[in-house]
Amino acid sequence: MTPTEASEDEAGAPPTLGVGMVGYAFMGAAHSQGWRTVGHVFDLPLRPRLAAVCGRDPAAVRDAAARLGWAAAETDWRVLIARDDIDLVDVCTPGDSHAEIAIAALEAGKHVLCEKPLANSVAEAEQMVRAAEAARARGQLAMVGFNYRRVPAVAHARTLIEQGRLGTLRHVRVTYLQDWLADPDFPLTWRLRREYAGSGALGDLGAHIVDLVQYLAGEPIAGVSALSETFVKERPVPTGPSQGLSGSGGGALGPVTVDDAALFTGRLASGALASFEATRFAAGRKNALKLELNGSEGSLAFDLERLNELSFHDHTERAVSAGFRRILVTEPEHPYLAAWWPPGHALGYEHTFVHQARDLVEAVARGEQPAPSFADGLQVQRVLAAVEQSAADDARYTPVPAPRPGATTPLAAGAAGRP
Amino acid sequence: MTPTEASEDEAGAPPTLGVGMVGYAFMGAAHSQGWRTVGHVFDLPLRPRLAAVCGRDPAAVRDAAARLGWAAAETDWRVLIARDDIDLVDVCTPGDSHAEIAIAALEAGKHVLCEKPLANSVAEAEQMVRAAEAARARGQLAMVGFNYRRVPAVAHARTLIEQGRLGTLRHVRVTYLQDWLADPDFPLTWRLRREYAGSGALGDLGAHIVDLVQYLAGEPIAGVSALSETFVKERPVPTGPSQGLSGSGGGALGPVTVDDAALFTGRLASGALASFEATRFAAGRKNALKLELNGSEGSLAFDLERLNELSFHDHTERAVSAGFRRILVTEPEHPYLAAWWPPGHALGYEHTFVHQARDLVEAVARGEQPAPSFADGLQVQRVLAAVEQSAADDARYTPVPAPRPGATTPLAAGAAGRP
Amino acid sequence: MTPTEASEDEAGAPPTLGVGMVGYAFMGAAHSQGWRTVGHVFDLPLRPRLAAVCGRDPAAVRDAAARLGWAAAETDWRVLIARDDIDLVDVCTPGDSHAEIAIAALEAGKHVLCEKPLANSVAEAEQMVRAAEAARARGQLAMVGFNYRRVPAVAHARTLIEQGRLGTLRHVRVTYLQDWLADPDFPLTWRLRREYAGSGALGDLGAHIVDLVQYLAGEPIAGVSALSETFVKERPVPTGPSQGLSGSGGGALGPVTVDDAALFTGRLASGALASFEATRFAAGRKNALKLELNGSEGSLAFDLERLNELSFHDHTERAVSAGFRRILVTEPEHPYLAAWWPPGHALGYEHTFVHQARDLVEAVARGEQPAPSFADGLQVQRVLAAVEQSAADDARYTPVPAPRPGATTPLAAGAAGRP
Amino acid sequence: MTPTEASEDEAGAPPTLGVGMVGYAFMGAAHSQGWRTVGHVFDLPLRPRLAAVCGRDPAAVRDAAARLGWAAAETDWRVLIARDDIDLVDVCTPGDSHAEIAIAALEAGKHVLCEKPLANSVAEAEQMVRAAEAARARGQLAMVGFNYRRVPAVAHARTLIEQGRLGTLRHVRVTYLQDWLADPDFPLTWRLRREYAGSGALGDLGAHIVDLVQYLAGEPIAGVSALSETFVKERPVPTGPSQGLSGSGGGALGPVTVDDAALFTGRLASGALASFEATRFAAGRKNALKLELNGSEGSLAFDLERLNELSFHDHTERAVSAGFRRILVTEPEHPYLAAWWPPGHALGYEHTFVHQARDLVEAVARGEQPAPSFADGLQVQRVLAAVEQSAADDARYTPVPAPRPGATTPLAAGAAGRP
Repeated sequence: MTPTEASEDEAGAPPTLGVGMVGYAFMGAAHSQGWRTVGHVFDLPLRPRLAAVCGRDPAAVRDAAARLGWAAAETDWRVLIARDDIDLVDVCTPGDSHAEIAIAALEAGKHVLCEKPLANSVAEAEQMVRAAEAARARGQLAMVGFNYRRVPAVAHARTLIEQGRLGTLRHVRVTYLQDWLADPDFPLTWRLRREYAGSGALGDLGAHIVDLVQYLAGEPIAGVSALSETFVKERPVPTGPSQGLSGSGGGALGPVTVDDAALFTGRLASGALASFEATRFAAGRKNALKLELNGSEGSLAFDLERLNELSFHDHTERAVSAGFRRILVTEPEHPYLAAWWPPGHALGYEHTFVHQARDLVEAVARGEQPAPSFADGLQVQRVLAAVEQSAADDARYTPVPAPRPGATTPLAAGAAGRP
Repeated sequence: MTPTEASEDEAGAPPTLGVGMVGYAFMGAAHSQGWRTVGHVFDLPLRPRLAAVCGRDPAAVRDAAARLGWAAAETDWRVLIARDDIDLVDVCTPGDSHAEIAIAALEAGKHVLCEKPLANSVAEAEQMVRAAEAARARGQLAMVGFNYRRVPAVAHARTLIEQGRLGTLRHVRVTYLQDWLADPDFPLTWRLRREYAGSGALGDLGAHIVDLVQYLAGEPIAGVSALSETFVKERPVPTGPSQGLSGSGGGALGPVTVDDAALFTGRLASGALASFEATRFAAGRKNALKLELNGSEGSLAFDLERLNELSFHDHTERAVSAGFRRILVTEPEHPYLAAWWPPGHALGYEHTFVHQARDLVEAVARGEQPAPSFADGLQVQRVLAAVEQSAADDARYTPVPAPRPGATTPLAAGAAGRP
Repeated sequence: MTPTEASEDEAGAPPTLGVGMVGYAFMGAAHSQGWRTVGHVFDLPLRPRLAAVCGRDPAAVRDAAARLGWAAAETDWRVLIARDDIDLVDVCTPGDSHAEIAIAALEAGKHVLCEKPLANSVAEAEQMVRAAEAARARGQLAMVGFNYRRVPAVAHARTLIEQGRLGTLRHVRVTYLQDWLADPDFPLTWRLRREYAGSGALGDLGAHIVDLVQYLAGEPIAGVSALSETFVKERPVPTGPSQGLSGSGGGALGPVTVDDAALFTGRLASGALASFEATRFAAGRKNALKLELNGSEGSLAFDLERLNELSFHDHTERAVSAGFRRILVTEPEHPYLAAWWPPGHALGYEHTFVHQARDLVEAVARGEQPAPSFADGLQVQRVLAAVEQSAADDARYTPVPAPRPGATTPLAAGAAGRP
Repeated sequence: MTPTEASEDEAGAPPTLGVGMVGYAFMGAAHSQGWRTVGHVFDLPLRPRLAAVCGRDPAAVRDAAARLGWAAAETDWRVLIARDDIDLVDVCTPGDSHAEIAIAALEAGKHVLCEKPLANSVAEAEQMVRAAEAARARGQLAMVGFNYRRVPAVAHARTLIEQGRLGTLRHVRVTYLQDWLADPDFPLTWRLRREYAGSGALGDLGAHIVDLVQYLAGEPIAGVSALSETFVKERPVPTGPSQGLSGSGGGALGPVTVDDAALFTGRLASGALASFEATRFAAGRKNALKLELNGSEGSLAFDLERLNELSFHDHTERAVSAGFRRILVTEPEHPYLAAWWPPGHALGYEHTFVHQARDLVEAVARGEQPAPSFADGLQVQRVLAAVEQSAADDARYTPVPAPRPGATTPLAAGAAGRP
């Protein structure tokens, strides 16, 4: 038999979806892994093509393109979003440029995936929602990258909650603990400067847990009371290019202008109580997102450092044999898992980006709104703004404006998460 | 050899310490186990004698005396505290009677051990502190029964903190979760009525965790912001005698007048941030007191449901081999352990009462102030009061009055915990 | 009301059961705690009275009597078993004297509780069984002290297995790991000398796990294949009195004549495969008895270092929500627990001795055979002998003689474990 | 700036390494993920090119090529290994064809990566070693795919052992538990037939743990004693194409000709004792490879279901603060991790194939022997043969022929695992 040139002669192969990515640091690398892999694992209606990546430094972006698997490199995001071979723009820059790039891309007729947090302010996020709604009418879709919704254990938790397994929700508690700022000599990177990052642990870590709570509970946070703190007020200014999570500082000290930690309590719309903590000062905790939900008929617990496991207590069982069970979320019946390995074979962090790409491609192919939408991202932003306001006002309980009815999609998101 | 009548002819045996106990429900049973056992395990300077127990129902208290090992039964606590054979009064009643009994006992020249919370109000607690100070001048000692300080793992945590192993403290988070009220048909026992219990989860569970945080951190809580909630507003009125943690309700419903759950954040005097949650609505959590402290040089974690273990992360180690270590706190070098079993042989909940009895007997024999003192108990009460005030005032940050210099003993308490 | 002299005037109080104990080291202290406490926690048909304790050193045994709560001290066990005020003899000596004392006590008309292992040889154990059977005909009962059957989680595991929750048993694996001999300078105490201890890790730790497997599976071990090893061949001879688990060595070295570790595999009568490991050389493992059973319909796991927990997987559930659940064995419905504390309040190691005393007292009062019987202890001994024989014969599979039909009581033992 | 066509004009890009893969089922999919990803994550001296994949069914292999990212499809492995654009042949077929394909590929001048177990018999494995040695002299390299050596936590364990952190090794215990055969209706796939699979749990799971023990201990297994069992003797014959881990059976029953479970104990060359268990009948255990090593100065534990964690106990620390620490193996200093995500971001199962590809590409580029070599694979095969022989001979202790000095590479393997 003559060898079949499989990839080069694919009669009946699905049409391509040209992807252009802006930014190629940590998030860019993770998104690239998602785009490269998704078509080899999931059976997709569109084939993502890694058309071009964009960055300001010509040599660096060329290197990144070669390393991360992008066909071309651009140095001007306005040029990137104008390319004909790009159907979808993936925004992986720091938060201060999200609004400008995402809105321009939508207006240029592209679908948009925007990293979280959606923006650095509620005002920007509202503009983005308006742009997304206008684009939606023209057939372009927008999604915000809260990737932890795509951890299979989290998506399975959402399924259990939708099925009513927790009954009436009473409590949510969630912490997101890291420790990379515990060292006072860690340099003053862009993530520690308000003008780039918007906020500190709050926007970086807090945004994730606020989104997860609203997603899992299927309802918005109604109000918050908050404390925040900047433990180390000044740090060495970096001498090299400013990175996010690493770098070395020079001699001069500059002011840290974001929070090191934020604690807040709140109420969900249904009356459940919620507790949140985001910090980069928890020595020994590397990426410790832990959450627990307690309802009248059951409880769920999850720990991102053991992301293949979900802990579930069924309170309707007899006490004599009840207890938190450790569900290894690796069965083919679990969200996303049928496409991967046999039971017991662990997935990792980066798989969330493969799943995110898969769900977005599916939504684009069907012309349906992907979740989380920009409106979901805006709702997170409103909570973060209320947290900052409360923290500045003696922790006073601060209501969060409710989403417009039908605007957000937490309930639909669970469905999108299942195969 | 003629058999030696060991217990009845003890030349050189230490003098006795006559103990009288008021109340014989859950706490009375636990304290009895402590008093009965302590002299058989620890080498004590005084031999506790279980002289008399007191309760209102004559038949019931006689049964309790026989079952729990008390030599006599009384039905009037005023008679009990007047008995010549009683040197120390152990107050195990609900919180509404603590002040009256404890103050009378001190004025009658007795040492006093009073169950936690010290009182149902700051005003009562302040009276008790004044009475304790007056008694102290006469040689009588007073202690409040925050027994969890006497879990060996907790006492060992205090030792590590005193040694500076955590560096500068940044974060404390502590939850105390139970689930016995998740069932809306659980009856309206005294623990759910403000006139007896003072408050709900806050006074019962929150008091423990507030004390533990102040003890472990070695510093007071400076202010708090709080939310609280009563999820189930009415419950069936008990038909039988009102118990605390169990019972069956009749047909009529009565109002629950205490909190079901309390969440609060706060700042310690040093600037560390703290997070607290106390609830009886966390399905599947039976007695889940979990705490974690993060400092610049290390972190500690503890879970009461695994009380023989302490988790410690040494942040001064190289990251490549660092991690939270599970210290099995059963070595002879650990607090209280030399008197018990070989390494790896677990202790349980009730051992805290044996240790509490041991430390109190030692303090009485030496004429030194035992910890926690009534002043420590008052400081807990002030925090609880601030929590209630904040919860009633839109969660506004509410300062806690600082203890009088020298009044409280958190730093000394660790020392008392070691053999 | 006149104070009721509760303990001294007990009309209607149950009759006493006079207990005499031989040996007062680690096991003696643990048994004493059991005898002292059982009547204050459980509602018993007989009141145990700690009549006398026996040891060879007059001063030491007097001290022990005073400390451990025994009314008298004896220096000759023959005198002790002859005392009229003793109804039950509790044998806590090293294994080389079990047979002589237990048989004499039975012949003297006493009930007997004998520490494990039952004896140092099958021949001795067979004699003891014969003596027990003869005594049984006269109304005296004999029990061997495999106390781990009385861990509530273990007893609950037995209940689940009896209920068929595991289906057909396929696998048992159990390890009992300690580390106190990892230090080559640990002295040559009696536990390391064959003439006193019979064997090393095998008899001390292996006996426990062999009994547990036969108890939980409800069937005998049919054959074994074994390896054993003495890693450190010589150790310093102790200069002071020979202790079991501690001590300090002098200068001279003496030969270790027991095994440091024993590994064996085997088959149960039903065809299930079993794996065993007993060692004192597992650095960092203090008292790590871990077991797991896998059946066609479920699995169970247990860890003695977390003895309040039982892990259960129900394989009849749908895979999507199945998983090992952590049952906190502290509910009133669990074995022994109704007498103790509210849910979530941990028990410890020594509680097994309280439960053992309770079950034995109940059996004596009812005139029923307690479990485990001497025949059960003999069956353990036969397995240990087969292990030694196999280890000496190139690990060849060595059948274990089956128990006489009806002789052993593993199935009945579960029932005795429930309240 | 003109867009840089990054991937298509790579002056200075490294030369390619053409890879051809035989088989495309579970292992083929996993290897494909490794080959596709490795060049985008690691900075490699050669660029792997997925040249062609081979399978017998033309349509199926074309589909597989398209899905898994191979440029061409072949239906005859002899044609595949003759292709000029293929430098390395990756053998992912069942064990019965390993020897024939691997030897032919080596003789055709290709490098070879062969899935584990190396072969279905010692004789075949010996032929493969001879072929590999002859090829080595010509510059071709051969490696066997024991991918679990490339779990970062396992590689880090090897580093700690090489550094002497465990002291003298005393114990190794390792279990590999799965449950997919617990259901008696699971069909008779090729993995249950001796003619294809060679053996059952032994060759599939046991081979992994034998290799891991020899790798981690850095020494061969000297002898074994074994039991094995086939619990379910007959299973439904599959009606569709025979798969490995899934499928549905028809009506007729056929005999299972491999073991369902194998238990064995053994001695390492140094005298340490080892315990092994491999089974597919452990209900609730999905891919539960757990191992523990105990030495005179430390212990290590690992659980594949939590593969980002390594548990380490340093026995040279003071007991008061010692304990098993949970090292989250996600630091840049850990093996392979510098190329991946920030600390705390989990890797998964498939990363082992990326790491395997990386180490093999590095070895090919340097012309150095990769580990594990075919000689390492042969040594595993000798252990498996001794296990089968012992199991057939009443579990008698069966020596394993020692490797020729210098033939195996366990000690070098650790070095290859570090970045």
